Amino acid sequence: MKILSSLNIGENNVERLEKKFDCVEFYMYKDIEQAGDHLEDAEIFVTFGFDTTADLIEKMKKLKWIQCMSTGIDMLPFETLKERNILLTNVTGIHGIPIAEYVMAVILNDRIDGFRLYEQQKNKIWKRKMNFEEVFGKTITILGTGTIGKEIARKAKAFDMKTIGVNTSGKPVDYFDEIFPTCELNKALSQGDFVVDTLPLTHETKKILGKEQFASMKDSAYFINIGRGATVDEGALIEALQNHIIRGAALDVFEKEPLPQDSPLWTMKNVSITPHISGLSNMYMNRAVPIFEHNLKTYIEGKEDYINKVDLNKEY
Amino acid sequence: MKILSSLNIGENNVERLEKKFDCVEFYMYKDIEQAGDHLEDAEIFVTFGFDTTADLIEKMKKLKWIQCMSTGIDMLPFETLKERNILLTNVTGIHGIPIAEYVMAVILNDRIDGFRLYEQQKNKIWKRKMNFEEVFGKTITILGTGTIGKEIARKAKAFDMKTIGVNTSGKPVDYFDEIFPTCELNKALSQGDFVVDTLPLTHETKKILGKEQFASMKDSAYFINIGRGATVDEGALIEALQNHIIRGAALDVFEKEPLPQDSPLWTMKNVSITPHISGLSNMYMNRAVPIFEHNLKTYIEGKEDYINKVDLNKEY
Repeated sequence: MKILSSLNIGENNVERLEKKFDCVEFYMYKDIEQAGDHLEDAEIFVTFGFDTTADLIEKMKKLKWIQCMSTGIDMLPFETLKERNILLTNVTGIHGIPIAEYVMAVILNDRIDGFRLYEQQKNKIWKRKMNFEEVFGKTITILGTGTIGKEIARKAKAFDMKTIGVNTSGKPVDYFDEIFPTCELNKALSQGDFVVDTLPLTHETKKILGKEQFASMKDSAYFINIGRGATVDEGALIEALQNHIIRGAALDVFEKEPLPQDSPLWTMKNVSITPHISGLSNMYMNRAVPIFEHNLKTYIEGKEDYINKVDLNKEY
Repeated sequence: MKILSSLNIGENNVERLEKKFDCVEFYMYKDIEQAGDHLEDAEIFVTFGFDTTADLIEKMKKLKWIQCMSTGIDMLPFETLKERNILLTNVTGIHGIPIAEYVMAVILNDRIDGFRLYEQQKNKIWKRKMNFEEVFGKTITILGTGTIGKEIARKAKAFDMKTIGVNTSGKPVDYFDEIFPTCELNKALSQGDFVVDTLPLTHETKKILGKEQFASMKDSAYFINIGRGATVDEGALIEALQNHIIRGAALDVFEKEPLPQDSPLWTMKNVSITPHISGLSNMYMNRAVPIFEHNLKTYIEGKEDYINKVDLNKEY
């Protein structure tokens, strides 16, 4: 059974898996361009998903299972996968810790006006007159209460913040003081001093944050997006930032990535741009490979207890 | 009973206190230069401490009590205070929250390489190749386990860090996984991925961190000082940073403040300088004034239950 990987999951992991599962032959490349003939033979495909186009699937005649080693799968060709009845699994759940660390980093950097302090240092300026507002007692509204949202809420509680979550049903979740169902989104947004978007991109979440939603927020609100760029109407966000409808934003994801050179976001004083890195971490493979390993055993043994099997109709 | 304040504690607070305590007359100025004749009359002096020299105390012939509205009192003329038997109280305990927020901000900014991301943005660079090491699982060694140290440890636990504390006796303290007595300082230092100095300046802590202590630390250690600059041998620190004995530092306090223009610290790539702001916060007076108010009641009623009465011999 041939496995093709278009990413480096570690030589040690490959060796271990080949030893553990006799029937398995591993072909691991840095990217899909180098895969050559193995495209046609591979039954299992391990990928970050960016390379997984309908054309590629077309060429992978024997493909039965895609293990996506990321969480966001919105770029995958779902129609093709459905036609071929290809199994799709991902690694949802492993991003909670690094992304929550990133979110608290940008919130606290905003709190201490870190970039201004950095510029002062570059100019050897000792100036103590600053308006510091503690995050203590502030409210954080988190869209999505899955692994990522919950981990952010957990950390926010250690800063004595009030945590508000938004999820489909409005059901209670640990570490959240209050939960609103999606139909009360604007009400939840109106309370947040910080608003964090952790949403995946689905039919339901596409441009869920538009002009009306930014208008619902406090004018002192700081918006953070580590979910998917397309959950936001980026034009409406830019307008809200330019017209001070909200105070500022830290954005790690965008409608189009890399963020185009001509995007006004790059140079806006109240916007912090990072290149979709919030989920990256030295611990990534340590958490992702065990999920693949479990699923590989399940696949070989013909069982059904996959971790993170994606419903191709719901697309999550 | 005349009270002179060389800082603004808020007009509303002055009014309230004058109403509450009939015998009290308040004279509040922005700084001591404006106090004029009231220097001679004042029985109670409310100050941040920076202006409180032996000369000043000399002029304040009727002075009986100094309420210092900061925690650091090392600059006060203790000999003069002892001769005159002047009561000294401070506001120890109110800095835990803002300083812990600052400490987590600089730790997390280091974690996401925030200044590099900021420079990338300024140059419109979308570059995702970075080495992110989560703080998850890292060890934080905190010197001092008082209000500030404990609050830092509490927040660090929400990031699943291992928390090591150092205090005089080695007695256990909440939120610390392990405590070392001061005599085992170097052992505690050797374990920290992050080392935080929260120490006040006393006879015992002066230059407690020198060449030997920096050598004890991991070469990957990141040092944070929010205590007092003079608890560190600054020359030894600079050498340790220049020679990569430790990885980097975030410094909010210095041997001499403002940090002199010719200090090499200003321009070191692995050093983040902030102008003694870690304790500043919008909540400062909300927490400091109630302490003064309690002490004023105690003073007027001739009782002894002062909050934060300083032992003039121990200097804390």
